[in-house]
Amino acid sequence: VKEAAARLMDGEQATVALQYHPTEGYLPLRQMLATQMQDLGVPCTAENILITSGSQQSIDLLGKVLINPGDKVIVEKPTFLGFLQAWGIYGADFVSVETDDDGIIPESLAAALQQGIKAIYLIPNFQNPTGVTISAKRRAAVVALADQYGVPLLEDDPYGRLRYEGDALPPLMAYDVRHVSAGGDGPLSEGNVVYLGSFSKTFCPGIRIAWACGPTEIIKLMTQAKQGSDLHTSTFGQMLTYEVARDGFIDVHVARLIKAYRARRDLMLHLMDKHFPENVSWTHPKGGLFLWVRLPEELDAQEVFQTAIKRNVAFVPGQSFFPDGGGKNTLRLNFSNAYPELIEEGILRLAEVLSEIVAPVS
Amino acid sequence: VKEAAARLMDGEQATVALQYHPTEGYLPLRQMLATQMQDLGVPCTAENILITSGSQQSIDLLGKVLINPGDKVIVEKPTFLGFLQAWGIYGADFVSVETDDDGIIPESLAAALQQGIKAIYLIPNFQNPTGVTISAKRRAAVVALADQYGVPLLEDDPYGRLRYEGDALPPLMAYDVRHVSAGGDGPLSEGNVVYLGSFSKTFCPGIRIAWACGPTEIIKLMTQAKQGSDLHTSTFGQMLTYEVARDGFIDVHVARLIKAYRARRDLMLHLMDKHFPENVSWTHPKGGLFLWVRLPEELDAQEVFQTAIKRNVAFVPGQSFFPDGGGKNTLRLNFSNAYPELIEEGILRLAEVLSEIVAPVS
Repeated sequence: VKEAAARLMDGEQATVALQYHPTEGYLPLRQMLATQMQDLGVPCTAENILITSGSQQSIDLLGKVLINPGDKVIVEKPTFLGFLQAWGIYGADFVSVETDDDGIIPESLAAALQQGIKAIYLIPNFQNPTGVTISAKRRAAVVALADQYGVPLLEDDPYGRLRYEGDALPPLMAYDVRHVSAGGDGPLSEGNVVYLGSFSKTFCPGIRIAWACGPTEIIKLMTQAKQGSDLHTSTFGQMLTYEVARDGFIDVHVARLIKAYRARRDLMLHLMDKHFPENVSWTHPKGGLFLWVRLPEELDAQEVFQTAIKRNVAFVPGQSFFPDGGGKNTLRLNFSNAYPELIEEGILRLAEVLSEIVAPVS
Repeated sequence: VKEAAARLMDGEQATVALQYHPTEGYLPLRQMLATQMQDLGVPCTAENILITSGSQQSIDLLGKVLINPGDKVIVEKPTFLGFLQAWGIYGADFVSVETDDDGIIPESLAAALQQGIKAIYLIPNFQNPTGVTISAKRRAAVVALADQYGVPLLEDDPYGRLRYEGDALPPLMAYDVRHVSAGGDGPLSEGNVVYLGSFSKTFCPGIRIAWACGPTEIIKLMTQAKQGSDLHTSTFGQMLTYEVARDGFIDVHVARLIKAYRARRDLMLHLMDKHFPENVSWTHPKGGLFLWVRLPEELDAQEVFQTAIKRNVAFVPGQSFFPDGGGKNTLRLNFSNAYPELIEEGILRLAEVLSEIVAPVS
């Protein structure tokens, strides 16, 4: 970052980096991202890309553009808290759809779509909070259903590049057959999917650079909304991110992250297998940051949290990820953000707490 | 900026700068701004400061928090376009109040307040678009009226430090007697005014760092809204701005800007005096970036623009600054953003166009 900032400030574009900029974002960065999206199977151009201040802002702008109070919005059960907060402000009425280890269940989605739905929000890869990935077969089914009902589908994909095993799946956006049939080299003008990508997990979250990729019409509406929201994302931050990305640093960095996070995930899963009580279960994520723990039905993760925190180990109780209630006996663990020694210490302490509660000393 | 970025990345806080951050903003920056606000006569603490991504975002967050469709909002006639765009999205119904060379007219404001008003938006110093400043006497009157009617008052002050003549006036927020009577050293908990400050005109606009200063309750609501909007403003951008500001660079830079912009203003005013037709009038701003031109009533600045643009000289026709219509014969000039040679060339060409239109060759 230091070197990139120095190059930027020494270069011809130094004054551009400190000035006002068009709302759409820095064109070379948008072009780079359009090429990346093409590589993922999405035929698009820079016109389909809007740079935003984190994907949280893409979510907010889409809420501003799409949602009126009372509009029904489908989410995975459970789903990302930041989405519920952002769209809750716009008065969205959330409809949670059941998921399993292959992601959202198409039959349940089809049933929910009959309620008159305004939008669908999905995290296809290594979901927050569950760590689950939507299978290839279900991706096709989900996109076909959005198409059949003509419902906008938000594909939030901050974790997709952090895969520790198995092959990458195309984004939902690549499954929209109308893109393929559209042909031509111009910008993408049709489709239901808006893809949200981010540098927060592949580079750093503190500079707040993300992007939305969608059909031109929705990108234009988001751009208008963004103009009123904050004029544009930091020019300096965009150009710095481009400077860091264009020499291949992010690819190198992601390879490093994958190695480190995979080891941490494996360690955490291994320790959980070894030390957690038998009637506690959890997901085995193939990537991302999170795994999801299910305690016996009668337990309340909030109460477990109170006990755990006294031994200086914390987690996120799962209840707040369920807008319709439920999930009292669930919790989220993050395997990516602690060093192995701390993971070991934390899981051992948590196992102790769980063992006492789940199978108390008789 | 290059040096500040290098210091930041070499320092102990380098990883903090690249990480997620609390929504409220970087504490040392908030503390520095609270001290600045105290120096302006506003008794506040860092708890009264929220860092935002440009003042445009402060405006947006306040709209999100305060405005429901149909709510009446008082603005100066004319007013800042970015405000109309941002609050227009939330369905605000704008009520324009007359202004003269001393700013908004208190008697007209008092009359408008009887309509049931949700908020007042004012730019007290070197207003955009007119360049006019609200006098000390009127500041006291305006704040007293907001207090009497219990209406939130947004004080948007991006230009206040760019003063080229006369003494600085306290911000509207300093006139709120309840602040003075509150006493104590804690955060400000009462008052109607929310002050919006920005680094965009004193440092640079491209990094998008601004702040809102207000009573704790409204700052908390804005912080909640910001969390849903973009989590937080770039940590890197905030820390970089702090790094640039804390060694006094911005004070030095502002002194330089004042010298340069004053000369440009004087040059533009001098050339207009000399070359513009007699029945065209304009404001004489004591600071800021803009001056405001009034053509004879029967002229349409849009049409003048079409002629001027053919000679490669542009300006902003005034009509869009009037939400209730009117202002056809007005236009905004920016004296700050062109080198003297270009100001000379531009004003001469514009004078030519105006002379042909206002007093056509017989």
